[in-house]
Amino acid sequence: MVDFDDMKEMLKYWTKKYMFPIALVIFQCVFIVLYAVHADYGFEHDQSSYVTTSNSPPPEGDVDFYYPYFQDVHVMMFIGFGFLMTFLRRYSFSSVSFNFLVAAFVLEWAILIRGYVFDWNSTAKTFVVDVKSLLHADFVCASVLISFGAVLGKTNPAQLVIMALIEVVIQVWNEYIGLTYFCTYDGGESIYVHVFGAYFGLAASYSLQRKKVVESEKESSSYASDIFSMIGTLFLFCFWPSFNAGTAYGEGRTRAIVNTYVSISASVVLTFVVSALVGKGKEEIIHIQNATLAGGVAVGTVSDKEIGLFGAMIIGSVAGTISTLGYKYLLESLKKIQIHDTCGVHNLHGLPGVLSGLAGIVLASMPWRSLYQDNLTDQCLGGGLNRSVRVHAGYQCAGLVLTLGMSIVGGLLTGVFLRLPIFASPDNDSYFDDSLNWHVPKDFVAEDSALGSLIKNILPGQMRLDETPLEPTNNPNTIEVIQETQPTHLIGLMKGTLNQKTSEETQPTNLIALMRGTINQQIDENRPRRSTSARDDSYPSQILRSQETPASPAVYVHRL
Amino acid sequence: MVDFDDMKEMLKYWTKKYMFPIALVIFQCVFIVLYAVHADYGFEHDQSSYVTTSNSPPPEGDVDFYYPYFQDVHVMMFIGFGFLMTFLRRYSFSSVSFNFLVAAFVLEWAILIRGYVFDWNSTAKTFVVDVKSLLHADFVCASVLISFGAVLGKTNPAQLVIMALIEVVIQVWNEYIGLTYFCTYDGGESIYVHVFGAYFGLAASYSLQRKKVVESEKESSSYASDIFSMIGTLFLFCFWPSFNAGTAYGEGRTRAIVNTYVSISASVVLTFVVSALVGKGKEEIIHIQNATLAGGVAVGTVSDKEIGLFGAMIIGSVAGTISTLGYKYLLESLKKIQIHDTCGVHNLHGLPGVLSGLAGIVLASMPWRSLYQDNLTDQCLGGGLNRSVRVHAGYQCAGLVLTLGMSIVGGLLTGVFLRLPIFASPDNDSYFDDSLNWHVPKDFVAEDSALGSLIKNILPGQMRLDETPLEPTNNPNTIEVIQETQPTHLIGLMKGTLNQKTSEETQPTNLIALMRGTINQQIDENRPRRSTSARDDSYPSQILRSQETPASPAVYVHRL
Amino acid sequence: MVDFDDMKEMLKYWTKKYMFPIALVIFQCVFIVLYAVHADYGFEHDQSSYVTTSNSPPPEGDVDFYYPYFQDVHVMMFIGFGFLMTFLRRYSFSSVSFNFLVAAFVLEWAILIRGYVFDWNSTAKTFVVDVKSLLHADFVCASVLISFGAVLGKTNPAQLVIMALIEVVIQVWNEYIGLTYFCTYDGGESIYVHVFGAYFGLAASYSLQRKKVVESEKESSSYASDIFSMIGTLFLFCFWPSFNAGTAYGEGRTRAIVNTYVSISASVVLTFVVSALVGKGKEEIIHIQNATLAGGVAVGTVSDKEIGLFGAMIIGSVAGTISTLGYKYLLESLKKIQIHDTCGVHNLHGLPGVLSGLAGIVLASMPWRSLYQDNLTDQCLGGGLNRSVRVHAGYQCAGLVLTLGMSIVGGLLTGVFLRLPIFASPDNDSYFDDSLNWHVPKDFVAEDSALGSLIKNILPGQMRLDETPLEPTNNPNTIEVIQETQPTHLIGLMKGTLNQKTSEETQPTNLIALMRGTINQQIDENRPRRSTSARDDSYPSQILRSQETPASPAVYVHRL
Repeated sequence: MVDFDDMKEMLKYWTKKYMFPIALVIFQCVFIVLYAVHADYGFEHDQSSYVTTSNSPPPEGDVDFYYPYFQDVHVMMFIGFGFLMTFLRRYSFSSVSFNFLVAAFVLEWAILIRGYVFDWNSTAKTFVVDVKSLLHADFVCASVLISFGAVLGKTNPAQLVIMALIEVVIQVWNEYIGLTYFCTYDGGESIYVHVFGAYFGLAASYSLQRKKVVESEKESSSYASDIFSMIGTLFLFCFWPSFNAGTAYGEGRTRAIVNTYVSISASVVLTFVVSALVGKGKEEIIHIQNATLAGGVAVGTVSDKEIGLFGAMIIGSVAGTISTLGYKYLLESLKKIQIHDTCGVHNLHGLPGVLSGLAGIVLASMPWRSLYQDNLTDQCLGGGLNRSVRVHAGYQCAGLVLTLGMSIVGGLLTGVFLRLPIFASPDNDSYFDDSLNWHVPKDFVAEDSALGSLIKNILPGQMRLDETPLEPTNNPNTIEVIQETQPTHLIGLMKGTLNQKTSEETQPTNLIALMRGTINQQIDENRPRRSTSARDDSYPSQILRSQETPASPAVYVHRL
Repeated sequence: MVDFDDMKEMLKYWTKKYMFPIALVIFQCVFIVLYAVHADYGFEHDQSSYVTTSNSPPPEGDVDFYYPYFQDVHVMMFIGFGFLMTFLRRYSFSSVSFNFLVAAFVLEWAILIRGYVFDWNSTAKTFVVDVKSLLHADFVCASVLISFGAVLGKTNPAQLVIMALIEVVIQVWNEYIGLTYFCTYDGGESIYVHVFGAYFGLAASYSLQRKKVVESEKESSSYASDIFSMIGTLFLFCFWPSFNAGTAYGEGRTRAIVNTYVSISASVVLTFVVSALVGKGKEEIIHIQNATLAGGVAVGTVSDKEIGLFGAMIIGSVAGTISTLGYKYLLESLKKIQIHDTCGVHNLHGLPGVLSGLAGIVLASMPWRSLYQDNLTDQCLGGGLNRSVRVHAGYQCAGLVLTLGMSIVGGLLTGVFLRLPIFASPDNDSYFDDSLNWHVPKDFVAEDSALGSLIKNILPGQMRLDETPLEPTNNPNTIEVIQETQPTHLIGLMKGTLNQKTSEETQPTNLIALMRGTINQQIDENRPRRSTSARDDSYPSQILRSQETPASPAVYVHRL
Repeated sequence: MVDFDDMKEMLKYWTKKYMFPIALVIFQCVFIVLYAVHADYGFEHDQSSYVTTSNSPPPEGDVDFYYPYFQDVHVMMFIGFGFLMTFLRRYSFSSVSFNFLVAAFVLEWAILIRGYVFDWNSTAKTFVVDVKSLLHADFVCASVLISFGAVLGKTNPAQLVIMALIEVVIQVWNEYIGLTYFCTYDGGESIYVHVFGAYFGLAASYSLQRKKVVESEKESSSYASDIFSMIGTLFLFCFWPSFNAGTAYGEGRTRAIVNTYVSISASVVLTFVVSALVGKGKEEIIHIQNATLAGGVAVGTVSDKEIGLFGAMIIGSVAGTISTLGYKYLLESLKKIQIHDTCGVHNLHGLPGVLSGLAGIVLASMPWRSLYQDNLTDQCLGGGLNRSVRVHAGYQCAGLVLTLGMSIVGGLLTGVFLRLPIFASPDNDSYFDDSLNWHVPKDFVAEDSALGSLIKNILPGQMRLDETPLEPTNNPNTIEVIQETQPTHLIGLMKGTLNQKTSEETQPTNLIALMRGTINQQIDENRPRRSTSARDDSYPSQILRSQETPASPAVYVHRL
C-alpha cells in the first residue's frame, strides 16, 4: 500500500533540495525556445554607407563603437560586483559565484525582455541582438546585482534566481516608461539602474526578513576578504566612466567620461576625509570599499550633460560624504527598523542615485546645460518635442518617483513571494555561511578559529565537513568513545553537536561556539576555588591539565 | 690528480641546478639573433588609402582593429590562466609565476615560428610583426598554457620550458596544415588551440608519469586559493568573446561576440545546475571555476557562423553539462589509467573542444549557416574554391582528427623526452609544493597546519625553511637536545625528519605528516590501557600530559 | 581662567589627528574653484572635418583614439600599482587604499597643473580637459605612485598627500622644460615619469629617515600577500604596451606596442634566469613581482622608434638582469646608506629608467632609427627644427640629467618639509602596520601568530583591537586577575603590554614578541635543572605543565 504522506514528504524534501537546479533547467529551455523564435543578429539593416561625424550616433550594430565600453562594463558586473561582495569572511564562495550565476542568468533573460519591450520589430516578429543589446543587458544586470547586495548571505540561490527573474521584468518596464513616455534623461542609468536596484533590494530584504532581526557573528570580514573586496572596488572605479558613457555618443560621450572620472575621484577623496573624521583619525575599509564609488553613481543621470567639471566635482564630493556617513550611521539605523542591508547598497546606490535624480531635476531648469531636447521624441508625454523646461523638470521628478514606487512595491511583493515555504529560506544561523551551499575546503572550519584548527590537526577527521559521517564505532578516536568512559554533560553536549554537524554539515561553527561557551562556563565555576586550590588556581591551567582531574571537561577541548 | 668521477658528479649537480636558467639564456640569445635577421615592423605595406566597409577585412597592420581584442586576450593568458591555476593551496607561487614565464617565453617563440610558417616573405627574407601577430602568438600561448594545466605541479620549470619549445612548433604546423590545406574553419581556435593543448598536455602527463600514481595531500585547495582562482575564471569569462572574435571581421565579428557571450552564459547556468544535481544540492567550487567556461570553448569553431543565438545557447548548455560531469566523474577515472590531469583540462578544453569540432562538422552540412566558402582558397585540398559541402564536412572532420593525432603523438614523445635524467623530474613527494622552486615566506609551512604554526610560534626557528640549517649544538632549544635526554624512537624519527628538512628544504609537510602518524600510532598503542588507567584513559590527555610520564612520545608534539 | 598651554596641547593633538582630512577638504575646495574658473570640455575646436591617414595625429579630443589606452593605463595605476604594493603582510589595507587615495587626488591635481603649464589658452583663459588630458594625468600619477613605493609603510596619509601635492608641480615643470625646450623624446615617459618618480621617492625617503635605520619584523610578506601582489604585477605587465603607446600615433603607435611587448617579455625571461642563478636554483617571488616589468620601463624612451624587435629584446633582457641583481644586492646596500626603499623602486623604475635614457642617447646618434626630427619644434633649444644629430644627443643627455637633478633636489627638500613636527611622522615601531591608520578586522592580530590566535580564541576579548579598552575589574578572566594571585615579574610584563595594547592599539605584535622572549628566557633559566628533575626535564613540558609548579611563568602562555 502506498503511503501518501511519505510520498508527500519525500516530494517536499526533493523539491527543496533540487528545486533550484530543476527550475534553472526549465528556464534555460524556455529561453532557448524564445531565442530560437525571436532573436536575430540583425544584419538586414543597411550598414554599407554612413558618414561618421563627430557628434552623430553610430550606425546600428556598430561593434567597435560599443565593444570596448561593453567589455569594461562586463568586467564591472563579474569582477567588480563579484569581488566587492567577497568581504564576508565565510561567504566569499557564495558571493562571487552566485554573483556569477545571477549575472549570467540575467544577461540571457534581459536580452529577451529588452528585446520584447524595447526592440520588438512587429513586422518581422523578431528583435535584434548586437553588442549594444549586450551592453544594455549588462545595465539591467547591474540593477539585479545591486539588489543581490542587499539580500546577500540571507537567501539561497533558488530565491536569487526567482528574484532576478521578477526584477528584470519590472526594471525593464520601468525604464521603458521612463525613457519613452516620461523622457526622463538618465545617461548613466543612476535612476533606472541604481535607484531601482537599491530600493528593490531593500524592500525585498525587509519583506523577506519578516521583522526578524539579523544577528550573526559571521557577518564580518577578515583581513584577506577585505583585500579581495578591494579588487572589486578598484575595477568598478576604473571602469565607471565606461558605464556612464557606454550609450552616449559624440560630445556627450566625452563629457560623460570626463565628468564621471572627475566626480568619482572627488568621492574617493571625500570618502577618505569623512571616514577619518568620523573614525577618530582612522579609516574604515568598508568606507573605502564602497563609498569611494558613490561619485560614479551620483553623476550618472547628468553625466553626459554640460555640468562643467566643477559641477561633477561638487556632485562627487557630496556623494562621497553622504555615502560614508550612511555607512557609518544609517546602516545600523535601518537595521533597527528591520531593513538589513548586507552590502550597504542603500548608501552606495540608493542615496547617491537619488542625489543623481535630484541633480537631474535641478539641471533641467538650465536648458543650456541639460540639453534636454536631445532626449525628446514625438512619443513623450507633456508636449512631445516641444516640451517646456518647466514641464521637463517635472518629468525628471516623475521618473524618479516612478522608479522609487515601482522598485519598492516590486521588491516588497517579491520578498513576500520568496517567503513561500517551497523556497526553504535559510534561517539566521545559516546566514553568511558558505557551508550551506558549498562543499568547502578543509580549512574552512579552521579559518574561523585557531582553536578549531588546532583540534582539527591533532585529530584530523573530527572536524572535517565529511560527506559521509564518521561511524563512531569504527573510529575509536572519536568523541563518542570518550563520552562512553566519561559521560559528563559537557561531553554530551559536544558529542551532540559533533554528530549533528558531521551528518548535516550545516553549522560548522557551532561546535566552536559551544566550546567557547563551555570554557567560559568552566572558568566561572572554578573562580571561587581559585585562591584555595593550588591545582585550580586559575582556569587556563585546567585546559591543559593532566590526569589528576580526569573528569575535568575542559580537557576535552584538547581531546577533540 | 683529477678525479673524473667527482667532476662528472659535480657537472651533473650543476647541470641539474642551473640547467633551467642557462637553457633559457641560450634560447633568448638565439631568439634575439633570429629577430634581428628576420623580423620587421612591416610598414612597407601601402596603408595610405583604403575604404572601410562594414564587412571587409581590416587593412594590414591596423592597430586599432586588433588592439582592444589583443589586450583582452593578453589578460586572459596572464591573469586568466595564471590565477585559474592558483587553486592549489601550496603551489600558488609556481602556478601564477610559471604561467607568467611560460607565456612570456612562448610569445617570443611563437612570433618567430608563426612568422616562419605563416608569414614568411621569401623575397624580403623577413616576416612582419604587428598587433595581429601578437594576437596570434597569444593564441599559440593559450595552447601551451592548457597543456601546462595538465602537468601543473608535477614538473619543474626546465621541463615546462622545453615542453613549450616543442609544443609551439607542432601546434603551429598543425594549424598551418589545417587552415591552409584542409581549410578547416575554426574561428575561436577550439580545435587548433583547445583540443590540441588539452590532448598534448594529457599525453605528456601520461608519458611523464611512467604509470606511477600521483598521490599527494598537497593536491588540494584552501578557501583563499579557491577565491584567487575565481579571479582567473571571471577574467576568462569576461574576455572570452574577444578570444573568439579576435581575428574575425565584419558581420562575423559581431556574430562571434554575441554567440560566445550567449554560449558561455548558458554554460555558466548549466554548470550550476549540474553541480547542484550531482552534489546533492551543494555546489563544488571547482566546477564553477572551470566548467562555467566550457561554453566559450565549445562555441569556438562555429562562433562566427550563422548558428543563431539558440544554437549558441544549446552548444553552451551541452558544454557546461558535460564539462561538469567530466570534473565529477571522469577526472578520477582518468587518474586510474595513469592520466593525471591537475587542472582538469580534459574537461574544460578537451571535451568541449571536441564538441566544438563536432559542431563544426554538423554545421558544414548547412552551407547557408556555415558560410564555409569564405574560408576556402586556391590552396585548399579537395577542390579549392569549388569544394562541395560534403567534402568540406569531411575536411572539418579531418582537421579534428589531424589535431588529435598530432597532439597525442607529440605529447607522448615530449613526455618521454622530458623523462630524461638530465631534467631531474620531481618525484611524488615534491609535487604541488612551492618550496621546491621558491624561497617561500615564513608562513608557508605554518599554513599547512595550525599545529605547525603553534609549534613555530612557541619555538620559532624550528620549522622555518631557513637557508642555513640550524646547528643543534648552538641552539639548545631544539629537538636534538630533547632527544639526548629521551631517545625514544619517535623523537629519533622526528629529529631525522627535522634535520632533513632544514638542510634540504624540500618536503616541509613531512614533519607534520610524521607527527600525525605518530600520534595516531601512539593512540593505538594506548587504547587497550584506556579503561584500566586513570592516567591514560584517552589518548589526547597524553598529548597534553605532564611530567608523570616523561618518556611519552606524544608530549613532544608540544615540545616542538 | 583659560590655560593656554592646555589649549595649545589640545590644538596640537587635534591638528595631528585631523590635519589629514581637513587639509584634504581644503585642497578639494580649491580644486573645485579652479576647475570652475579654468577648465573646459573644449568643444569649440572644429572637429567636423578631418581626414584620417594612417600616420597623422588624431584630431583634438578624439575620444576613441585615446580611450582604450587610457583605460588600460587607469587599471595600471589603481589595480597595478595598488596591488603590487600589497606584498607587506600587515600593510595591505594601507598599500592598496592610500594608493587609491593618492592616485585619485593626483588625477585631480595633475589635470589642473598640466592644464596651466601645457595647455593654457591665454586668450580664453581656459584649458581643455578631454580624454587625452586624463591619460596625461595618469602618467603624472604614475610618477607619484612610484615615489610612494619608496616611502611605503613609513609615512602617514597626510605626508603622502603633501608629497603628492609638491611632486606633481615639479614633475610637470620638469617634463615641460624637457619636452618643450630640450625636446628630449621620451615616448613611454621613462625619463619624465619613471626616473623622476624613483629618484624623487628615494631622496624623500632618505631625508625623511634622518639617518635612522628602518628595522621592522613587519616589513615582510606572507604567502597570501605575495599572491595579491602578483595581481598588480600581471596587470602592469599586460597593459604596459598601452602605457608606452598611449600618446603615440600612426606607425609609432604600432612600434611602441610591439617593442614594449617584446622588451617586457624578454625581461620576464631574464628575471627568472637571474633569480634562479643568484638564488641557488630557486626563485624569489619579489623578483618575479617586480623585475619582470623592468623591460617595459627600459624600452620606454625609445619605444616608438625604429629600434627593431631585436633591439627591444636586448634592452628588455638587460633591464631584467640589472633589475633582478638590484633587488638581490643593491636593496641592502642602499639601506646601509640610509636609503630605505620599501618596494625597491630604484631597481624597477630608477635603474631601468636610466638605462632607457641612455638608450635614448645612443639611439640619437642613429637618426634613421631615432627619427628625432619628428620631436623638434621651433621652440627647441639648440637649433630648433634644424638641430643636428650631435646636438640632439646632447639634449637627450641633458633631459636625463635635468630630471635626475630636479627629482633628487625636489625629493630631498620635500622630505625635509615632511619631517616638520606637525606631520607627526610615524616612528619605526609603527612602520608597516595597518593598525596605525585603520580599524582592522579581528583576525588582524591573530594573523601574525597562530599562538596569538589560539590565545584569542581561548580568551576572546583579550587580544582584540577593541575601540574601548577592556576594564580589568569588569572582566575577571583577564590577565589582571591572574596577576593578582601570582604577581611574578613575567605577568607584570605581560599585563603591562596587554594594557598598553588594548588602550593604544598601536603595536599589536609586541605582546607576542614579549611572550616569545619570555618563553625563551624561561627555557634558559630551567635548563640547568633539566637533568636533575623528572618534572623539569625539558622546558616545553613547562609550557604544558600542570598545577605542581604553580608559579611557573610559562603556564601563562596558555592562561592568556
